[in-house]
Amino acid sequence: MFFASDNAGPAHPSVMQALVDANAGYTSGYGAEQAMADVTAQIRTAFEAPDAAVYLVATGTAANSILLATMANPWDTIFCSPMAHIHEDECNAPEFYSGAKLTLVPATNAKMTPDALRAAIANEESRGVHGPQRGPVSITQVTEKGTVHSLEELRALTAVAKEFDCPVHMDGARFTNALVSLGCTAAEMTWKSGVDAVSFGGTKNGLMGVEACVIFDPKLAWEFELRRKRGGHLFSKHRYLSAQMAAYLKDDLWLDLAAKANARTTQLATGLRQHNQAELLFEPDANMIFARYPRRDHKRLLDAGANYYVWDGDAHAGDPDEPLIARLVTDWSATPEAVDQFLTVLRDGS
Amino acid sequence: MFFASDNAGPAHPSVMQALVDANAGYTSGYGAEQAMADVTAQIRTAFEAPDAAVYLVATGTAANSILLATMANPWDTIFCSPMAHIHEDECNAPEFYSGAKLTLVPATNAKMTPDALRAAIANEESRGVHGPQRGPVSITQVTEKGTVHSLEELRALTAVAKEFDCPVHMDGARFTNALVSLGCTAAEMTWKSGVDAVSFGGTKNGLMGVEACVIFDPKLAWEFELRRKRGGHLFSKHRYLSAQMAAYLKDDLWLDLAAKANARTTQLATGLRQHNQAELLFEPDANMIFARYPRRDHKRLLDAGANYYVWDGDAHAGDPDEPLIARLVTDWSATPEAVDQFLTVLRDGS
Amino acid sequence: MFFASDNAGPAHPSVMQALVDANAGYTSGYGAEQAMADVTAQIRTAFEAPDAAVYLVATGTAANSILLATMANPWDTIFCSPMAHIHEDECNAPEFYSGAKLTLVPATNAKMTPDALRAAIANEESRGVHGPQRGPVSITQVTEKGTVHSLEELRALTAVAKEFDCPVHMDGARFTNALVSLGCTAAEMTWKSGVDAVSFGGTKNGLMGVEACVIFDPKLAWEFELRRKRGGHLFSKHRYLSAQMAAYLKDDLWLDLAAKANARTTQLATGLRQHNQAELLFEPDANMIFARYPRRDHKRLLDAGANYYVWDGDAHAGDPDEPLIARLVTDWSATPEAVDQFLTVLRDGS
Amino acid sequence: MFFASDNAGPAHPSVMQALVDANAGYTSGYGAEQAMADVTAQIRTAFEAPDAAVYLVATGTAANSILLATMANPWDTIFCSPMAHIHEDECNAPEFYSGAKLTLVPATNAKMTPDALRAAIANEESRGVHGPQRGPVSITQVTEKGTVHSLEELRALTAVAKEFDCPVHMDGARFTNALVSLGCTAAEMTWKSGVDAVSFGGTKNGLMGVEACVIFDPKLAWEFELRRKRGGHLFSKHRYLSAQMAAYLKDDLWLDLAAKANARTTQLATGLRQHNQAELLFEPDANMIFARYPRRDHKRLLDAGANYYVWDGDAHAGDPDEPLIARLVTDWSATPEAVDQFLTVLRDGS
Repeated sequence: MFFASDNAGPAHPSVMQALVDANAGYTSGYGAEQAMADVTAQIRTAFEAPDAAVYLVATGTAANSILLATMANPWDTIFCSPMAHIHEDECNAPEFYSGAKLTLVPATNAKMTPDALRAAIANEESRGVHGPQRGPVSITQVTEKGTVHSLEELRALTAVAKEFDCPVHMDGARFTNALVSLGCTAAEMTWKSGVDAVSFGGTKNGLMGVEACVIFDPKLAWEFELRRKRGGHLFSKHRYLSAQMAAYLKDDLWLDLAAKANARTTQLATGLRQHNQAELLFEPDANMIFARYPRRDHKRLLDAGANYYVWDGDAHAGDPDEPLIARLVTDWSATPEAVDQFLTVLRDGS
Repeated sequence: MFFASDNAGPAHPSVMQALVDANAGYTSGYGAEQAMADVTAQIRTAFEAPDAAVYLVATGTAANSILLATMANPWDTIFCSPMAHIHEDECNAPEFYSGAKLTLVPATNAKMTPDALRAAIANEESRGVHGPQRGPVSITQVTEKGTVHSLEELRALTAVAKEFDCPVHMDGARFTNALVSLGCTAAEMTWKSGVDAVSFGGTKNGLMGVEACVIFDPKLAWEFELRRKRGGHLFSKHRYLSAQMAAYLKDDLWLDLAAKANARTTQLATGLRQHNQAELLFEPDANMIFARYPRRDHKRLLDAGANYYVWDGDAHAGDPDEPLIARLVTDWSATPEAVDQFLTVLRDGS
Repeated sequence: MFFASDNAGPAHPSVMQALVDANAGYTSGYGAEQAMADVTAQIRTAFEAPDAAVYLVATGTAANSILLATMANPWDTIFCSPMAHIHEDECNAPEFYSGAKLTLVPATNAKMTPDALRAAIANEESRGVHGPQRGPVSITQVTEKGTVHSLEELRALTAVAKEFDCPVHMDGARFTNALVSLGCTAAEMTWKSGVDAVSFGGTKNGLMGVEACVIFDPKLAWEFELRRKRGGHLFSKHRYLSAQMAAYLKDDLWLDLAAKANARTTQLATGLRQHNQAELLFEPDANMIFARYPRRDHKRLLDAGANYYVWDGDAHAGDPDEPLIARLVTDWSATPEAVDQFLTVLRDGS
Repeated sequence: MFFASDNAGPAHPSVMQALVDANAGYTSGYGAEQAMADVTAQIRTAFEAPDAAVYLVATGTAANSILLATMANPWDTIFCSPMAHIHEDECNAPEFYSGAKLTLVPATNAKMTPDALRAAIANEESRGVHGPQRGPVSITQVTEKGTVHSLEELRALTAVAKEFDCPVHMDGARFTNALVSLGCTAAEMTWKSGVDAVSFGGTKNGLMGVEACVIFDPKLAWEFELRRKRGGHLFSKHRYLSAQMAAYLKDDLWLDLAAKANARTTQLATGLRQHNQAELLFEPDANMIFARYPRRDHKRLLDAGANYYVWDGDAHAGDPDEPLIARLVTDWSATPEAVDQFLTVLRDGS
């Protein structure tokens, strides 16, 4: 019953085996190893993007920040939702790397609306040199609330961005969970829908710590490389990053793991919906649920060993009928049994 | 015969086993896992520094840059040798993180001399607010030329720094190779000799990619944590960093690996000294040699499969008698047989 | 009928005369001239703050940005209203200088409300190291909408800031207009109300281009000096800044000029209120009005030579009955006759 | 006998009169005033550069730093002499604005030598992504030691820069003194000799505080504007900058003032050379002298009221025969009588 985060679970055994296999003899480092050339080819194939520049870093904050810095000028503002990870959870890293600031665009279900985005972008540059200039639009897919933009929603947002010549970044920390949810291709969810660069996450979906940065315009490649090095994010023993990513992409492991994680959330959501005291706050399109239920239920779950974040409300005291908001995240290693147990404990209190 | 770099070899099997062992079940991340508490305790013990703040990052550039940013103000200058890694090989990362600039202090055998350091520090602030202010002194131990500062040399430098209230940073990418070379304790080579913070390297000595930042003044701890996160260097699945470092420190593995690496360099140096065409440029105190020998010898070594960097001279053309300068680095996994083979090929040409 | 901005009018003749007087012979520069010592004494007296650090810069953006950088850490967020000049009109300068980001606090009449400020500050740091940390609160007095915080309102905001140990900055680009409006002392409007540092504007109130930075905690003085120099804002021929500020403070010129500017706005507001088609959007407490009136009136004013900004609405086309929003600013040099003329033209259309 | 600095003297009366004349009525600001259009035209004419972008700032550090930031990437290194003002006297401002670092190129008579420049540039990028990349070359004309690069010397340096596609910046804080010294045109000393952008100083030559930034490639114009605003260096009451510069350029005032300043240095140098105890350290090509003479002479000059910097040696104690090094700078307002008096006092001690 561990639903605290998809970065609290283990790496997949195939990934670990790939590390063991990679751990022999001498090899070039810094991404010049053969394994990285293989990863680049794999990702280009997966994204149907034969010219894409592909780089690996070890954290999602690094992926987002270095990509945004490559896409933005220091006098720009980056458009994102008010609950974007780059705004709330990266301790000013995107601003540090890019020099740009963030403009928060009103969102529904954690998705910026096209009208709000248009209004926000239009409003910038009305002040000429005095205000910040229009920079990239950053879309989180899966959103921080567990919803997934449909291709239509994505295209509506990127169309607005294109009206103003703003490049589009996708924070895909849970990229594959969204992909599986939509049942589309990686190309469809990115460049075919107007996305210019992606933080293609692996850490939350079975890797130890690797994120790929995929840039569809190869003219930005060298700048990215320099920014990565200048940020201290170029690994000498880079083979251990490429080995993970190669294993991830091999034989559809990435898709399988995301499908598993999503299935557990579906199972959890179905059960929660049957519980007359529980309410889902957002449509759980991928592997994350925000649910409201009474503190008494929370208390019982906790006593039974469940582990998750209370997103709102006082978990420790107060009226047992008072509802709390829980965030529940399922990773690839969550078992159907664990979900069943959670739902059973929840039901038992009714 | 792979002597290109100590970051081109594999991780030690015990380290890999520790990763495999760590890869089970759920755990807290971001350094809040129990394994990190254990690592902190291990390092405090190893350094005899019960109050030291200890953090892990994955690259040496990150370790150096975040530490220096924590120790320097943006209007300071950092004093280092002209061949310091922070100056030559980090693509402006120390400047990016700290805002400070670097002042290059004349060095002998890649070691700043106390007099040159005093002159350099004294010269700053002579211009009041107009020039940069006096910031940290950064000492690389093992130096970039393979020499090791004796404790006396270290103390002479830190004494100068203390005259001017400048904090002292040690870039210890090859910390343990130096330690083994000097036969002293980690405490003696750091805080007992006036060092305030250390980049305690692991990657070049048998880890996949982990460096510890050890700060003897715990008042700087929180700032370091914020700077690490803001730089994108805080790992969610942090257990895979702490597992490596725990294995490294267990049963003196760190010391054993460095001793092995150093022994191979001693073996290599002994052989080179016996070769009448070869000349060592610096005293190879640890696991790195700079040697000058004729291009004909280099060519023969290359043909026999040797792999190392030509530091100076044209490796590809010219008079076969013309000397080149080769950099030879031995890591923990270099074998006595590989060194012997190298020396045999070298001798065979005489 | 020039009401476009209080930085479009001339410097006061006394200020110009002071420059002429200062323009003789040799003198020390960089603020070491005697005139600056005099200015420091004048400002300390005016603010009843015998220990305050006082510095001059030439632009409001410089004053705000260097002060905020001195008060904030690079991982902080600065709290301000959504229409704050530091957010909308400084092209990322506060972020550039400080490294911090801005959090926009909901405002009424361009004034943050204490409850919204408390909620905004409380919300930060709920994420530990992951999110930005609590930094300074920046209050604009006169606000960007022409309203003035009463002392009670100021104290309510600074009390919230103090709950969380956040320092308080005042953007006083129109400081004196507010002071005259409130009829209080500079001390009452600043440190006696919990303000820690002030951008004390002169440029909008009769100077050529000088703003004083007044820091009540002298421990920050040296850092400010270094940040000013590092930003390129330390003047060699500093006497021409101190001469302006000395003239400004002499014989209550600063107060007289602000009183004149405010009186013209009162005159304008009175007339606008009598015009049945016009509506004031905010209480014009100082020297700035936002008024809504029909495009036909705007057109006629334009034709008669009036000059001001249309803040909202299309000034060039559309229904003549459609209302526009005009921003009208009166500076010290605006004449009662110009205001009368404006009101007459406006009335003539009724 | 005030020879401390050319920024310690007054502004020329014509400049002051221009300010008085500009101080009437309302006008647009931020460089949109008509006067700035006139200045741009004047400078384009003076430099025979009809497409040049021209901007004004108030300090030399701002001019240098914003120009260099516009020309350099954050991962670059800027090549300059070890005594460059941007290195020694700007408290990290060039690094702050650009993100780049500085590489010090060995110099003779404060002029980088072409061979040393070539070696320095060639050395960068030998490390690929690991080291800083090749950025602009910055040449100070007049140098910080009072020497002037001949056109041949300039062209030799810019030719080296062009070999490596490095743009060339000229720090012309004393631009006009060099121009008068060489007797060439502004075009010859800049773009016709391979210079891409110039900090065209005015403050040291009769203005209150204005430097023009002249960029020969207009494609960089908008970036410069944004960087200027983001640095807080865009003046609202910009007319007071353009008025100064317009007066400066009118009727060859700039050339006349520099000729006067240079003549006083020639007079001084001639006298010093006749003094058998004095020695000139550099060829005083413009308006600055570094001279070595005994402390007894210095003491006597001081007692007689002379004012200048002792560049090296202890001015306050020691053997009266011990030589000191004095820096003597003459500005436009220095009188022949003052120079005579200085020389007389010096001679009287012999």
